[in-house]
Amino acid sequence: MSRFLSQRLLSLDAYVPGEQPTDMEFIKLNTNESPYPPPPGVVSAINAEEIEKLRLYPSPDGNILIDKLAKFYGVNTDNIIIGNGSDELLAFAFLAFCDKTRHICFPDITYGFYPVYAELYDLPYEQIPLKEDFTIGVSDYFGVGKNIIIANPNAPTGIALKLIEIESILKTNPDHVVLIDEAYVDFGADSAIPLIKKYDNLIVMHTYSKARSMAGARLAYAIASAALIEDLNRMKYSFNPYNVNRLTQVAGIAALDNDDYYKEKQREIIETREDAKSRLRDLGFIMTDSMANFLFTMHPDVSGADLYAALRSRGILVRHWNKARISDYLRITVGTKEQMDLLIAAMSDILSQTHK
Amino acid sequence: MSRFLSQRLLSLDAYVPGEQPTDMEFIKLNTNESPYPPPPGVVSAINAEEIEKLRLYPSPDGNILIDKLAKFYGVNTDNIIIGNGSDELLAFAFLAFCDKTRHICFPDITYGFYPVYAELYDLPYEQIPLKEDFTIGVSDYFGVGKNIIIANPNAPTGIALKLIEIESILKTNPDHVVLIDEAYVDFGADSAIPLIKKYDNLIVMHTYSKARSMAGARLAYAIASAALIEDLNRMKYSFNPYNVNRLTQVAGIAALDNDDYYKEKQREIIETREDAKSRLRDLGFIMTDSMANFLFTMHPDVSGADLYAALRSRGILVRHWNKARISDYLRITVGTKEQMDLLIAAMSDILSQTHK
Repeated sequence: MSRFLSQRLLSLDAYVPGEQPTDMEFIKLNTNESPYPPPPGVVSAINAEEIEKLRLYPSPDGNILIDKLAKFYGVNTDNIIIGNGSDELLAFAFLAFCDKTRHICFPDITYGFYPVYAELYDLPYEQIPLKEDFTIGVSDYFGVGKNIIIANPNAPTGIALKLIEIESILKTNPDHVVLIDEAYVDFGADSAIPLIKKYDNLIVMHTYSKARSMAGARLAYAIASAALIEDLNRMKYSFNPYNVNRLTQVAGIAALDNDDYYKEKQREIIETREDAKSRLRDLGFIMTDSMANFLFTMHPDVSGADLYAALRSRGILVRHWNKARISDYLRITVGTKEQMDLLIAAMSDILSQTHK
Repeated sequence: MSRFLSQRLLSLDAYVPGEQPTDMEFIKLNTNESPYPPPPGVVSAINAEEIEKLRLYPSPDGNILIDKLAKFYGVNTDNIIIGNGSDELLAFAFLAFCDKTRHICFPDITYGFYPVYAELYDLPYEQIPLKEDFTIGVSDYFGVGKNIIIANPNAPTGIALKLIEIESILKTNPDHVVLIDEAYVDFGADSAIPLIKKYDNLIVMHTYSKARSMAGARLAYAIASAALIEDLNRMKYSFNPYNVNRLTQVAGIAALDNDDYYKEKQREIIETREDAKSRLRDLGFIMTDSMANFLFTMHPDVSGADLYAALRSRGILVRHWNKARISDYLRITVGTKEQMDLLIAAMSDILSQTHK
């Protein structure tokens, strides 16, 4: 820390992202990336002509990509904003809609970045405990008098709310923003996008990082009423107007032309997930009913920290948090069938060496 | 604006970037891009293998690129942070180092984004008027008791400070951060990077957008003492850890292996600029002695607004601000020799039709 750091940031705990080993020797099941590359149509779209155009700034509003997204989701272009990953758009939303009089609330166990944004901007927030079984107590959010952010499916639990439950939260909080972070929605939950026509307080956030195999491109978008999108654009144009680079916009457009590929890969991931669930249960693992591209699981005989370390020593990276309520759990990304075979073999091996 | 916008942002005027026409029919001399594409080595570095790796997150700390930048500039890796364009790193610096007790100051005529950051985060700032000839009054900044941000060369004037002048500002403000924004430094000014070993309050910011022909890739870096970089990283990891996408990191690395290409293009741009200066002076234009890749110029017989409109109607886009002191000036990016020939022909034509 320098002697110049502002008072505000002295006590800030930054977010700690999952390990990104550069040697690639691990089976990487720790940051919920897709095990499948982007489709050939995306690879060919990033051609020499597009690369040479890097001399020019990207379109700040991303109009071609936004036109395409609008058609894809059946909304208007003024209902969409694009960002440099969900993290950037989430940061915009926190600063745009929260202040000392408009607090924000979210589950105690959810995406670890939410409290970081609140602390970064010195915004009051409340963490509402999940129920004992890690489900969201929907009625806890009825008329809560605060802005609300909920990941659906939630992370790291993978548990999804039904659309009718989200609607009940929207209905009872008409004067506060409800942001539904749908990073993992394509693996089995229902999207709230159709509700934006009915609720002017709803923001739905999507990312290309998970189901669209493009974590490395950094691309996300929010869909909401035109007025909310206008506010988010005001943030963007006060922070970084050229926030999404040219090649990412090109890739984002090409991806929408290859939706069949993604649908197929999503089906494969769901099938692999359900198969892994059942095989891990056979080994005695306990888990949530994840609707995401990861499992959230624990074994009664081994602590989360020990299991994490034992997997790591066998070349498999998963995610573990030393955090109350979930320290015995691991979040394990659903990889290819072959990767899950190796995971399950490693788990068997670890359990066979565990002396109770 | 929605009814949910936070109080703080109600009166915020966002930055207005230069026009980015998507039809590409204009001769585009309005946003200081390079007229030359990135070198072939950058184009070939973004290959199918790298594009397929988009399924994985980028390195959050950008370690391979930072290693390379450190060697290039003769500094340590902990002296460098990368960002999604200078705009993002500037925003981090404003929030990291300014608060109600640490104000910031900068020239009244400079990069238009500086006051926007200050207003976005509700940070007190002072604008110090340039002298009548648009030069920075260096002594105005001696012991000013505030953080300082200066673009060198300054924009839109193009006028450069000498290194000894920057050092005098650093010396007399040991307890405040001095940020030198060197977006245009490669076109004729001296970089302050060597001073970071001597001054722990100095941040030097560079971009790939101008001299490295990669405005579309969104890549910038700051060089400073390890403690200041640690603070900027704390901001980054509290905002968007994966802020620079994979392909931009690949391009940024390849660019450093092609420095000869860039040096040659920089020489060409400087030669074209000096030639254009002299030909415009022959037409009666008045201008600053720009050391950047743009000219800042006015003609006594035509208003800036009229000149801007007349050029636009002839298919040439330049930048004009309706702002006190500079409303009669245009900022004109230095393009290729052919583009400048067309610009000067258009100027001649406009002047020949001007009735005084």
